[in-house]
Amino acid sequence: MKACIITIGNEILKGRTVNTNAAHIGKFLTSRGYEVERGITVKDNLDEIKWAIDESFGKYDIIVTSGGLGPTFDDMTVEGVSRALGLELVEDRETLEILSKRYKELSAELTPERLKLAYIPAGSHAIRNPVGAAPGIWISGGKSSILVLPGVPREMEAILDQADSLINKNDRFYYEATERLAGVMESAMAPIVNRIMEEHAGEVYVKTHPLKSETRNPEIDVEVSAYADSAEMAEQAVRDTIREILAEARRMGKK
Amino acid sequence: MKACIITIGNEILKGRTVNTNAAHIGKFLTSRGYEVERGITVKDNLDEIKWAIDESFGKYDIIVTSGGLGPTFDDMTVEGVSRALGLELVEDRETLEILSKRYKELSAELTPERLKLAYIPAGSHAIRNPVGAAPGIWISGGKSSILVLPGVPREMEAILDQADSLINKNDRFYYEATERLAGVMESAMAPIVNRIMEEHAGEVYVKTHPLKSETRNPEIDVEVSAYADSAEMAEQAVRDTIREILAEARRMGKK
Repeated sequence: MKACIITIGNEILKGRTVNTNAAHIGKFLTSRGYEVERGITVKDNLDEIKWAIDESFGKYDIIVTSGGLGPTFDDMTVEGVSRALGLELVEDRETLEILSKRYKELSAELTPERLKLAYIPAGSHAIRNPVGAAPGIWISGGKSSILVLPGVPREMEAILDQADSLINKNDRFYYEATERLAGVMESAMAPIVNRIMEEHAGEVYVKTHPLKSETRNPEIDVEVSAYADSAEMAEQAVRDTIREILAEARRMGKK
Repeated sequence: MKACIITIGNEILKGRTVNTNAAHIGKFLTSRGYEVERGITVKDNLDEIKWAIDESFGKYDIIVTSGGLGPTFDDMTVEGVSRALGLELVEDRETLEILSKRYKELSAELTPERLKLAYIPAGSHAIRNPVGAAPGIWISGGKSSILVLPGVPREMEAILDQADSLINKNDRFYYEATERLAGVMESAMAPIVNRIMEEHAGEVYVKTHPLKSETRNPEIDVEVSAYADSAEMAEQAVRDTIREILAEARRMGKK
């Protein structure tokens, strides 16, 4: 099961906002057995959003977008997704009722900017936003399922949790563990990692992350991960590999 | 001047690592007058890295990559960039000397994994890494300049600073300022922002960021930014627009 994450917003590209949403969504999908294969960040621009969807639609089992769902002119994710898929925007009755009630309580008008949040692509369905105004949107089936989430982190997280039953197929499982090795240069571990990766190709993935200088007082994290058909198999593959790596590191006289 | 940032690494896609590098590079480029138009994150995979370069080469004035420069098998950025550009890898004499000296001092062999760091695309030049082993790489001219940086943040930052004179053209300037408005719903500001954006199309950009719930105790950041031919012009455009927005907000009876 393959996934792509699309984040929308000039503020991310400028570095005004660190892309914690992509990390949160990436963690969520990985823990549900997906392999997140690509991340794309585009501006608040219709052509760019459409490009990102066109580029990923059909390549991944799921595409999750975040950002661009608000009431201002530059919130154009829903329109961009609709254009890419050739779907019209239709009024979602339930969202409209929620918005009507909400703004009535505030004695505020249901202006076109507020009404915009009730329009979703034909055939999709709205996922209620328990903490804000813009609903999430789920477009299932076809070549890729698409989950459209808002950019405000607590709204994004709340809707993602609600979409768990739609996303989680419970047929692939992920497990990872990390061992920290002090006094080992990443380049010294490289041949060992290469050999293990070759011997267990497709079963486990080993990646080293240098934490300090390679040559002065080195320290690395060795991250081992696996996808498998059961949680137990994934964990077993990771544990076996870690044992093998630690034995090799000891043989090198380091730890 | 348009820019694209490519970050490479499974750990970013999985959400194990938050992509602070993209934010740092985005801020750096924006403050030097670039508009960062797109961000791409790909796996440690040759085809994916090549795809990201192919997709962006020729569309942007500068492409900055981060990650995948280490000694392990899955560090393949240099090879991916070389393949995309059709350039052979050649030994960089200066880097080779630095590496030779470094590992000699540690009585460590110059293994193939360590030697790998001295190979760069033909016609490019290495940028010395003051805090680590892998140099940065600058590929200038052609349809896009490419700056290749390591993924370890302090190494990436140190090399980016050294590349400033290559990147900074000093002919476009960026300025931004943010005003926080309490008690204003984002949807209430939307028509005002739309009007101002239309009247100043291409000169300034106004974006609202909701900080709290839209309807309960609302609070928003109004971010105004501009690119111009001088720093003074950019600042003036931003200040004038902020004055106009604050006047409108006051007229609405809010602040």
